[in-house]
Amino acid sequence: MERTVISGGLVVTASEEVEADVLVEGERIAALALRGSETARSWAESGARTVDAAGHYVVPGGVDGHTHMEMPFGGTYSADTFETGTRAAAWGGTTTIVDFAVQGRGRSVRAGVDEWMAKAEGRCAIDYAFHAILSDVDESSLRETDALVDEGVTSFKLFMAYPGVFYSDDGQILRAMQRGASNGALTMVHAENGIAIDVLVEQALAEGRTDPRHHGEVRKALLESEATHRAVQLARVAGSPLYVVHVSAREAVEELVRARDMGLNVFGETCPQYLFLSTDNLAEPGFEGAKYVCSTPLRPREHQEHLWRALRTNDLSVVSTDHCPFCFSGQKDLGVGDFSKIPNGMPGVEHRMDLLHQAVVEGRIDRRRWIEIACATPARMFGLYPSKGTISPGADADIVVYDPRAEHVLSAATHHMNVDYSAYEGRRVTGRARTVLSRGRVVVDGGAYLGEAGHGRYVPRSTCQYLI
Amino acid sequence: MERTVISGGLVVTASEEVEADVLVEGERIAALALRGSETARSWAESGARTVDAAGHYVVPGGVDGHTHMEMPFGGTYSADTFETGTRAAAWGGTTTIVDFAVQGRGRSVRAGVDEWMAKAEGRCAIDYAFHAILSDVDESSLRETDALVDEGVTSFKLFMAYPGVFYSDDGQILRAMQRGASNGALTMVHAENGIAIDVLVEQALAEGRTDPRHHGEVRKALLESEATHRAVQLARVAGSPLYVVHVSAREAVEELVRARDMGLNVFGETCPQYLFLSTDNLAEPGFEGAKYVCSTPLRPREHQEHLWRALRTNDLSVVSTDHCPFCFSGQKDLGVGDFSKIPNGMPGVEHRMDLLHQAVVEGRIDRRRWIEIACATPARMFGLYPSKGTISPGADADIVVYDPRAEHVLSAATHHMNVDYSAYEGRRVTGRARTVLSRGRVVVDGGAYLGEAGHGRYVPRSTCQYLI
Amino acid sequence: MERTVISGGLVVTASEEVEADVLVEGERIAALALRGSETARSWAESGARTVDAAGHYVVPGGVDGHTHMEMPFGGTYSADTFETGTRAAAWGGTTTIVDFAVQGRGRSVRAGVDEWMAKAEGRCAIDYAFHAILSDVDESSLRETDALVDEGVTSFKLFMAYPGVFYSDDGQILRAMQRGASNGALTMVHAENGIAIDVLVEQALAEGRTDPRHHGEVRKALLESEATHRAVQLARVAGSPLYVVHVSAREAVEELVRARDMGLNVFGETCPQYLFLSTDNLAEPGFEGAKYVCSTPLRPREHQEHLWRALRTNDLSVVSTDHCPFCFSGQKDLGVGDFSKIPNGMPGVEHRMDLLHQAVVEGRIDRRRWIEIACATPARMFGLYPSKGTISPGADADIVVYDPRAEHVLSAATHHMNVDYSAYEGRRVTGRARTVLSRGRVVVDGGAYLGEAGHGRYVPRSTCQYLI
Amino acid sequence: MERTVISGGLVVTASEEVEADVLVEGERIAALALRGSETARSWAESGARTVDAAGHYVVPGGVDGHTHMEMPFGGTYSADTFETGTRAAAWGGTTTIVDFAVQGRGRSVRAGVDEWMAKAEGRCAIDYAFHAILSDVDESSLRETDALVDEGVTSFKLFMAYPGVFYSDDGQILRAMQRGASNGALTMVHAENGIAIDVLVEQALAEGRTDPRHHGEVRKALLESEATHRAVQLARVAGSPLYVVHVSAREAVEELVRARDMGLNVFGETCPQYLFLSTDNLAEPGFEGAKYVCSTPLRPREHQEHLWRALRTNDLSVVSTDHCPFCFSGQKDLGVGDFSKIPNGMPGVEHRMDLLHQAVVEGRIDRRRWIEIACATPARMFGLYPSKGTISPGADADIVVYDPRAEHVLSAATHHMNVDYSAYEGRRVTGRARTVLSRGRVVVDGGAYLGEAGHGRYVPRSTCQYLI
Ligand SMILES: [Zn+2]
Ligand SMILES: [Zn+2]
Ligand SMILES: [Zn+2]
Ligand SMILES: [Zn+2]
Ligand SMILES: [Zn+2]
Ligand SMILES: [Zn+2]
Ligand SMILES: [Zn+2]
Ligand SMILES: [Zn+2]
Repeated sequence: MERTVISGGLVVTASEEVEADVLVEGERIAALALRGSETARSWAESGARTVDAAGHYVVPGGVDGHTHMEMPFGGTYSADTFETGTRAAAWGGTTTIVDFAVQGRGRSVRAGVDEWMAKAEGRCAIDYAFHAILSDVDESSLRETDALVDEGVTSFKLFMAYPGVFYSDDGQILRAMQRGASNGALTMVHAENGIAIDVLVEQALAEGRTDPRHHGEVRKALLESEATHRAVQLARVAGSPLYVVHVSAREAVEELVRARDMGLNVFGETCPQYLFLSTDNLAEPGFEGAKYVCSTPLRPREHQEHLWRALRTNDLSVVSTDHCPFCFSGQKDLGVGDFSKIPNGMPGVEHRMDLLHQAVVEGRIDRRRWIEIACATPARMFGLYPSKGTISPGADADIVVYDPRAEHVLSAATHHMNVDYSAYEGRRVTGRARTVLSRGRVVVDGGAYLGEAGHGRYVPRSTCQYLI
Repeated sequence: MERTVISGGLVVTASEEVEADVLVEGERIAALALRGSETARSWAESGARTVDAAGHYVVPGGVDGHTHMEMPFGGTYSADTFETGTRAAAWGGTTTIVDFAVQGRGRSVRAGVDEWMAKAEGRCAIDYAFHAILSDVDESSLRETDALVDEGVTSFKLFMAYPGVFYSDDGQILRAMQRGASNGALTMVHAENGIAIDVLVEQALAEGRTDPRHHGEVRKALLESEATHRAVQLARVAGSPLYVVHVSAREAVEELVRARDMGLNVFGETCPQYLFLSTDNLAEPGFEGAKYVCSTPLRPREHQEHLWRALRTNDLSVVSTDHCPFCFSGQKDLGVGDFSKIPNGMPGVEHRMDLLHQAVVEGRIDRRRWIEIACATPARMFGLYPSKGTISPGADADIVVYDPRAEHVLSAATHHMNVDYSAYEGRRVTGRARTVLSRGRVVVDGGAYLGEAGHGRYVPRSTCQYLI
Repeated sequence: MERTVISGGLVVTASEEVEADVLVEGERIAALALRGSETARSWAESGARTVDAAGHYVVPGGVDGHTHMEMPFGGTYSADTFETGTRAAAWGGTTTIVDFAVQGRGRSVRAGVDEWMAKAEGRCAIDYAFHAILSDVDESSLRETDALVDEGVTSFKLFMAYPGVFYSDDGQILRAMQRGASNGALTMVHAENGIAIDVLVEQALAEGRTDPRHHGEVRKALLESEATHRAVQLARVAGSPLYVVHVSAREAVEELVRARDMGLNVFGETCPQYLFLSTDNLAEPGFEGAKYVCSTPLRPREHQEHLWRALRTNDLSVVSTDHCPFCFSGQKDLGVGDFSKIPNGMPGVEHRMDLLHQAVVEGRIDRRRWIEIACATPARMFGLYPSKGTISPGADADIVVYDPRAEHVLSAATHHMNVDYSAYEGRRVTGRARTVLSRGRVVVDGGAYLGEAGHGRYVPRSTCQYLI
Repeated sequence: MERTVISGGLVVTASEEVEADVLVEGERIAALALRGSETARSWAESGARTVDAAGHYVVPGGVDGHTHMEMPFGGTYSADTFETGTRAAAWGGTTTIVDFAVQGRGRSVRAGVDEWMAKAEGRCAIDYAFHAILSDVDESSLRETDALVDEGVTSFKLFMAYPGVFYSDDGQILRAMQRGASNGALTMVHAENGIAIDVLVEQALAEGRTDPRHHGEVRKALLESEATHRAVQLARVAGSPLYVVHVSAREAVEELVRARDMGLNVFGETCPQYLFLSTDNLAEPGFEGAKYVCSTPLRPREHQEHLWRALRTNDLSVVSTDHCPFCFSGQKDLGVGDFSKIPNGMPGVEHRMDLLHQAVVEGRIDRRRWIEIACATPARMFGLYPSKGTISPGADADIVVYDPRAEHVLSAATHHMNVDYSAYEGRRVTGRARTVLSRGRVVVDGGAYLGEAGHGRYVPRSTCQYLI
């Protein structure tokens, strides 16, 4: 079994900061030893391969709990394949993604999972797992979830938005939550009142308000918070946990606060775009705003401080990317003259770790919280812990040697995602993954990609580990 | 013009308690004069008819803002006609009702209003007005509401419950509220998440939980508060006022408190049944519980104190009856073996004033608040003030000489409603209307009914006077 | 008995707007009659004196529940005597004041009341009553309050600020509240944490921050809300009602909201200066800011909307003036170079009715609410209702014929208060008292003062009528 | 350097559960290795001493952040010396205490710290540190805190209770918090409104309500929550963190929730007595209730669920013991006939780990949370992390091999605290420390005490590591 020692770095996990060397045996972390201890010295002398981490952080690989590779939407597909998307993730220090397999209308959930398995198989640079999106909630699909949970697909997403596409009504949501309460599945919801929003969309278009910024105006914060509150109440009735994806509005955060103060198993996720971008971007001149069209939409700048605060108070627990890239040219432009036709989604899988480290640099969160929201909590939330999300004996050797002082500029010219623009074009950040190990293998090192499609494996998940 | 002096009583309105004599000229109140003043003495000597109110309260006739006479429901009709129902109201000191005209599915709103006008015409003992229930919310029906508002039907009710019957989805509710924001109409909602409730109903019946008490168990308080919150948020999006009918759950009250603390035009109504009855009644042995089946349902006893408190803090503003009687024998028994088939509704129009006076006797509210929630506020809320709901010069002479010391027992044996049971059978209360004037005419006096069908007139309403 | 008919106006009270004529017999209102009714016509023909109110409002005289005439403070006296101050009040349409008699340290409460009685006796243009300030809360002074309540001094004020002067500690406040719970007295508090504020004052002065604006900075909103919360909790422990004077901070309002949502007998007062002025005034150049020094202090402008909203939701119930004028020249200048030496207080008794009517003009409140917060509620709160605060048979004939269209400019050049500046210098307002009656006597009419010192009488008060 | 391997157990920390062996070199943890890994096998073969932990948990030694050994109170001393108290702690799996050095009135803070240092020196079985109680908050004592922080006394406790003894007024508290905001010290408060409580005590005694249960009745929950709110506001004004000791009332928890939802650095501690005992104990017959007299007092049983919930939501962060034992015979009986003379305090240092493990057994918290609230968080809160509170390379080898299945009965007959009663007499719990290491030395093993007075060392502390 190959042995690697990562030495000289500061090991940072969600709970510890330790000057320790890390011994990897094969694909797993075998041991941690205090720098300079007899044990550490013995490793140094054992002939094991050494990765020098002096002056660097040694952190768990990122876990991105929300991505959409090769996702069909509005007549096109998100631009990253599992191959290009997971490679970009690796470049950015993310070593696990949880993607969404979609149940087609009129088809079984399993067929969707199988289809996504097939798309990913043999293509991924890093490990991957799946949630499933339920498009037809009925007796048959809910029965399927029992077996899927046993096989490692332990969370199911429902949409309160997108009537006629992914939308589930409150009865379907309640039934899915009841099933989750019995089989251990975590219910995820996209919380926007899509029925009401579609009225506002229709009215906006009828009145000629067709620019990208109107996407943000019709999808009102109050209609996000309304749906969030509704999802919480349905979860209470069902006795089920709830995970609210891509929270963007302060009013929605307030609903999470209310729920969590009651001690409920209610969890919130936000994304870098909501923390760093705003309706100012949606209002960029011409059709530029289309680059920032996603749902829930970007919010006015003043919402950001509420999201950051909630990340500190743990009323928001996870930062995922909702990576769902569409090229500006050829895809986003489907919506010229009608914002409702712009494919919803933004690229981001490559930059999450760096943007959140930037928040450490700026004093918004501390280093441990960085790892917690980006690695440990998503791993626990989605049943991947402690294989993923931490550095401890027995964990998978998904490790990033992170240079906290490296400055670089985000740009479509240099990023590795398969999309023709960057939502953060020109933004300078401090901190960058230097060396990335995936299950013990170095896949990125010093600006070179050393991985290969197919190294990444499917990881069946256990159930959510956060339930009180 | 006939002149009547009501002398010697304590005039109690929502804001005053005055030892004054009241002069009625024809159908209206002409003047109030301090007892013993020259003016009062001159009236006594003028040969006007005198009603002696010594030792009594002189209060405005009650305004019951929520009744259902001859209402079709579940294949039958509510048992009181406009004739029997308004006569019973008069007996109990109520001199105005606002009933609900129902738009039939596939028909115009006006057709419903016309139909209800026809049913009431020439039959009523007291004055009456109409709200309309919107069953098909669409461009056409909303356009109709503009004219209806002008003609005195100024409030429209929408159901978040009863899918397939009265149910409107959130888009329809939003559109109706937007219309109300522009034409001045008040949007009323029945706030229960009917889509979710119907799932629980189906599950209860499938599991053999078919007794009346399960009606209360499936219609969960959380699903009332959820819908209440949702209605508030939709009203905020629309910029519209909101009136929530028959609030029964403390959690729903909390949503009203939140909304009202923000200064929103959100108003709540409760009913005597929620203040005096509870799930204990629904659980009475055999099929007895069916007598108490209404929606929103009765709640556990501990909710009552929250309703009373909200009545004191004005977070609940109105007490109406939701009078909708079905005979135990021949109607309620449609639901033997299946609680979902029990016609929803209870009798109550006759006892509201007395039950609320009982609350005065018990120290829960003071006399002025009694008149405020039972007379003045419903009159203002529904655009009937100051013709109705108060005693002041120019108001209609709808006046009750109320004996605050008369004890009596509520019972089907003695009540005047056309229904074979009383929800308050055997309950002793203190206080009773002795003399009731409707537009200057004595319709009840000392245990005799002196009115006639057809005395009561249709009253067109102006818009809600409570909007801030 | 002299008879006066006020005819042709719109009678506006806290609850009604009626086209009625008002008959005054002697000092009281005898009757109201519908305009054009036989009764009204008979008055017109009876030879009674007529006041023509056509095109005007006929409203109750204002009740200012918080004034300080000839009040000793910081080595000087507030500049209005009972003679000048009540005359100015009359000019502005206020016909009753409740002033604060001060218990001197080491003296009895009664001695203070007697002293204030003597100051007012024979000097007042309008009726007056007294609260008492407790400076020494002990067994002896609390025992005194029992008799004082019986004699019409039914409310006692305690200071959580001004250590060493008026300050009472929490034990004293608790004891006073317990006594109030037993003898019916209303406890009023000045809610600021004076102990903490004095630390900040000392620090500010030590650091050379001596300008008037620092008065506002050290008396922090959080220290007002803290004291407000504390007063509420002490009142809950004592089972006593609570009236919080001169609320200025939104955070303090939030504490009132919390308390009132619980159904507690907690009431808040604010003043025109907090509604119309702000820290911008305190920061006026040179020593100008001293004109606006009062405690609680003016707050940043954004607090105003919260106060207005609370006035609409009734979380603030009363607007008084806290009239306590000190001349800019010779009094305010005691604090040049040391803001803590500036006498605390502002003139205002003359302008309250007009400033609040301005809020009607601007759509912040409606007419009835204007009368409610300025007349009816203070009258009820302090046991003067229905003699004062309304227009109904039996009430004192304290009546204002108010011209809602008269424009005028507030200025020291034209005001009648005995102080050399106006806090509202140059402000244009719409609406003005044209004719003012005090107990049936015209004291102001069409720009002429017709009253006399000594017309005003002491009014003993009953206990607070707002207790639930 | 001596090497010890703890093998075969489940290592449980606040964030991980790992099947790993732990290598101790000298006084510190050198390494963790996956069970069965080459590294672990090499240790087994290296001749190191082995502690067999098969079937056991391997957890960090407990950190009790709140004890009072040899504490003078009401004319007597708490019954445990540093020798007996720390020995009992070790028996119960606690390996660090933070005790309170008391500044005597009129003396320097340092003199108090020196005195406590001297009491502890050479006597302790386990490591110890100190907070200081400030009895005289003035310029001089606050200046002292700068140096004390540098020397490892980084938190200072202030009392809002006990006027005339430890009480600080709000100005003193504000000044102390300001100093903490500048020198990094954590301000701890005993949050009860002692001024108001003393009024109620006096009244109770005057009325003959002298039994122990009246101790609980006069120290009202509202007066705890009031003081908690006040401390939070003062901390906001000062820009300082706040740690509220021994929170017992649900209302106080609600204040913490409010503060923490704002993102403030406000932290709450509770104690096992509030989680497991109630006013039922205070009301035990005769003078038995005196055993349970402590302040804040025990609360009615229904408060417990709120404390448990807050422990899950992290609105309460730490469970300490407030260990302050007084013998029933000879100490508690000072208060026969006058509850206010009963020495305040209860024994508990020995049972905290077991009682909290019992909560794991009963499903109230999970294992990681057990370690978090009992070990990791107090260590971080008080600047002892990562030396104390976790198991990771470089940490002190304070390790407990815990048998999760051992049942035993708490009793004065078997406990090791120097006090003649147990507050939990007869209570059966599951789980017990089998082997306890303090800095690498086995001090308890299999029912034998192997430690010695003086092994324990003083640990200077860094500042609070929880500040956001
Ligand atoms: Zn997504
Ligand atoms: Zn409220
Ligand atoms: Zn109804
Ligand atoms: Zn004051
Ligand atoms: Zn004042
Ligand atoms: Zn304490
Ligand atoms: Zn919270
Ligand atoms: Zn203590």
